[in-house]
Amino acid sequence: MKFEHVDRLLVAHRVLAEQGHDELHFGHLSAIDRANGVMWIKRGDIGFAGVAEEHLTAVNLAGECVFGQGPLHTELWLHLSIYAARPDVQAIAHSHAPRVVAFSAVEPDWPIIDQYSAEMSNGLCWYDRSGLIITQELGENLARAVGSGRTCILRSHGLVVADTTIEGAVVGTVEFGRSVEIQLMARTLGTVRPMDPADAEPMRARFAERRETRVRNMWGTIASSPRR
Amino acid sequence: MKFEHVDRLLVAHRVLAEQGHDELHFGHLSAIDRANGVMWIKRGDIGFAGVAEEHLTAVNLAGECVFGQGPLHTELWLHLSIYAARPDVQAIAHSHAPRVVAFSAVEPDWPIIDQYSAEMSNGLCWYDRSGLIITQELGENLARAVGSGRTCILRSHGLVVADTTIEGAVVGTVEFGRSVEIQLMARTLGTVRPMDPADAEPMRARFAERRETRVRNMWGTIASSPRR
Amino acid sequence: MKFEHVDRLLVAHRVLAEQGHDELHFGHLSAIDRANGVMWIKRGDIGFAGVAEEHLTAVNLAGECVFGQGPLHTELWLHLSIYAARPDVQAIAHSHAPRVVAFSAVEPDWPIIDQYSAEMSNGLCWYDRSGLIITQELGENLARAVGSGRTCILRSHGLVVADTTIEGAVVGTVEFGRSVEIQLMARTLGTVRPMDPADAEPMRARFAERRETRVRNMWGTIASSPRR
Amino acid sequence: MKFEHVDRLLVAHRVLAEQGHDELHFGHLSAIDRANGVMWIKRGDIGFAGVAEEHLTAVNLAGECVFGQGPLHTELWLHLSIYAARPDVQAIAHSHAPRVVAFSAVEPDWPIIDQYSAEMSNGLCWYDRSGLIITQELGENLARAVGSGRTCILRSHGLVVADTTIEGAVVGTVEFGRSVEIQLMARTLGTVRPMDPADAEPMRARFAERRETRVRNMWGTIASSPRR
Repeated sequence: MKFEHVDRLLVAHRVLAEQGHDELHFGHLSAIDRANGVMWIKRGDIGFAGVAEEHLTAVNLAGECVFGQGPLHTELWLHLSIYAARPDVQAIAHSHAPRVVAFSAVEPDWPIIDQYSAEMSNGLCWYDRSGLIITQELGENLARAVGSGRTCILRSHGLVVADTTIEGAVVGTVEFGRSVEIQLMARTLGTVRPMDPADAEPMRARFAERRETRVRNMWGTIASSPRR
Repeated sequence: MKFEHVDRLLVAHRVLAEQGHDELHFGHLSAIDRANGVMWIKRGDIGFAGVAEEHLTAVNLAGECVFGQGPLHTELWLHLSIYAARPDVQAIAHSHAPRVVAFSAVEPDWPIIDQYSAEMSNGLCWYDRSGLIITQELGENLARAVGSGRTCILRSHGLVVADTTIEGAVVGTVEFGRSVEIQLMARTLGTVRPMDPADAEPMRARFAERRETRVRNMWGTIASSPRR
Repeated sequence: MKFEHVDRLLVAHRVLAEQGHDELHFGHLSAIDRANGVMWIKRGDIGFAGVAEEHLTAVNLAGECVFGQGPLHTELWLHLSIYAARPDVQAIAHSHAPRVVAFSAVEPDWPIIDQYSAEMSNGLCWYDRSGLIITQELGENLARAVGSGRTCILRSHGLVVADTTIEGAVVGTVEFGRSVEIQLMARTLGTVRPMDPADAEPMRARFAERRETRVRNMWGTIASSPRR
Repeated sequence: MKFEHVDRLLVAHRVLAEQGHDELHFGHLSAIDRANGVMWIKRGDIGFAGVAEEHLTAVNLAGECVFGQGPLHTELWLHLSIYAARPDVQAIAHSHAPRVVAFSAVEPDWPIIDQYSAEMSNGLCWYDRSGLIITQELGENLARAVGSGRTCILRSHGLVVADTTIEGAVVGTVEFGRSVEIQLMARTLGTVRPMDPADAEPMRARFAERRETRVRNMWGTIASSPRR
């Protein structure tokens, strides 16, 4: 059994590791093969770096492993519930990057202060419960919070980005990390000034309309280099 | 068609990447060839790192591509309007470095607290509108804000440095990034104490008078190494 | 004379160096060989990086060197007293990582805000005196503070992790460093929101129960790469 | 003309660069040859990295170049005045590291919160004027501020460490940088708790008494690796 887009999925794992989204408490990334009714995801005992084809498992939509070896991630329902609720979603990234986790652990506050926050404000949501997503019920709770959005901040936990492509899920995760960096430095430097909505809203709309091209350009950049 | 200073322009792109000014939401750098009525700038779908001669385009002063391939940057008027208003300017750098963007997103405050802020205070201005510079009119607004200055902070957006040489524009950008780092750490460490104007003003004047030598020395340092 | 687990001990030194726990004011790591009544620890004039078998010394339980060369660490009683009080402990790591020292120098505050702080809250204690642990009496004071715990923050000094395995002591040290990073960024980003105990307590219990597997997975990650 | 300790001086330049003390606005390091009445210092147009024997100049005690090529540093009197006032001093390091400059730009505050600040508190002083040290008179002002101390913070400028050996001046500079890192993180993490003087004073005295051994050990560590 082999996933048609295995090469893209493996590059995506490398990129997440290189961009600071690998962690001791592992995050995970999945892609769905709806024709065959399975989701592909790495085994649960390793991080993003060094993931090769042999580390991938195929899990059916009931959460049962149908291909591959090794322990599974305990949060399979984080992925499966969103795939069930959202036929448009093809890939889901879940990051525990330290800056993302830190952001998820403070009072929710997402002022639009730059191009990143303008772009990410499109389809952003917050999931206010902090435990692991280890049951179908918890997964469905999360899927309801995500709704039709792309980017969800999980309190005291991390980030979920649900996208129509593997590359889009990874780019969204990397953008979110950069956005948090900027928020962090701005809050240290002084009094943050949110953008005038008259400037921010057209920017958000412009970026949303051109999302496909933007993802392609950003992916070209991060897929070719550890940090840019 | 070939730009006389193409080698300097390519090194300048590498230096901006190495010094932390590359970003997913790309910045850009231009140099003008006034004799031939064109500005040289990289294509719009890539960042600073890895830019080679084949990625450069020539754009005439009406914003039309006359040489080279690939999509153009959408903010050509950011460059063209300043060149039109300022015959002394030969190169313009535009950075989206995270720390620069963070600085641009807070209440304007530029205390002179060290040699960087003293040096950068020479010809510093603020552009208080936050959208992209995608029309001639917006470019002209920006050019008016820049006036006869060198360094302009664009609210919630980034930095523009307009200089008489390619190297000067890059050095000014790198210096600004370092200056923000110091401002950030100082504001974290305690109560900032601006320099006595009786000390700061002679320093500013001394640095301005020796700018050419200083740029040459700093360029020698950053052009030979990723981070110094 | 040779320590049975010398290879594991040497890898552990490399990992501590790679994960940011090496410092000018050296930390140290020990493992005990209870059958032979000695503890193995590097000589006192070098840091974690580059430690080879020739740099290891064996010290008996009275603090006398019985094998190896070079000056000893002055804080041998930090280790010996805990080994005396805790038959279950096989290895002890002592870190002076800058972020750990910084954390040890502020008012004690350990809100559970993420998976790291939930996991580390298991067996966490504070030693409120700030001098070096250079006598048996001071060592016994520290051992009393540690009690049956695993992780102890030494005021204005650093960290001690006492574990049942070499790998567990190192993983606990690395986890603590990551946890401090997240606490630091969260406190910069905004108002920290501790987890609901109804979520935090099951997470702590779950992680404690699966500690052995978790340590193995995390060790696999950090032993194969400088930073992940 | 050749300096007896040229090899040590060159390694010292490399170490300062590797430890984050190189900067666009160059710092400098000198060593004195009292028998021949000259001080050795690099030429003024380059940073610490890559300094080779050909970049060294010899300057007599009146500030005149007697050997070597290239522009001199403008702050020669920073060094010469201290050498004149302090027959025990053999080497002087002057750093513009960003974190050091940031620390020099805020209200003076040096709580003893860890082993670094305890050690550095020995012979620490503040020079409260912020301009460049470009005249003999300014140099003498600084030398008076330094007095019999080792480490002097120059407001809005940087650091001077005057020591009895080249290695001691460099180690003192590196220790100060680490100390500022810890102060910065502690102030971000929470309310700093200065050490009890009953703990801090014996630590300071102990470190002072063992300074020679400590410098040798720390030098061994930093001279063999970029960052530890």
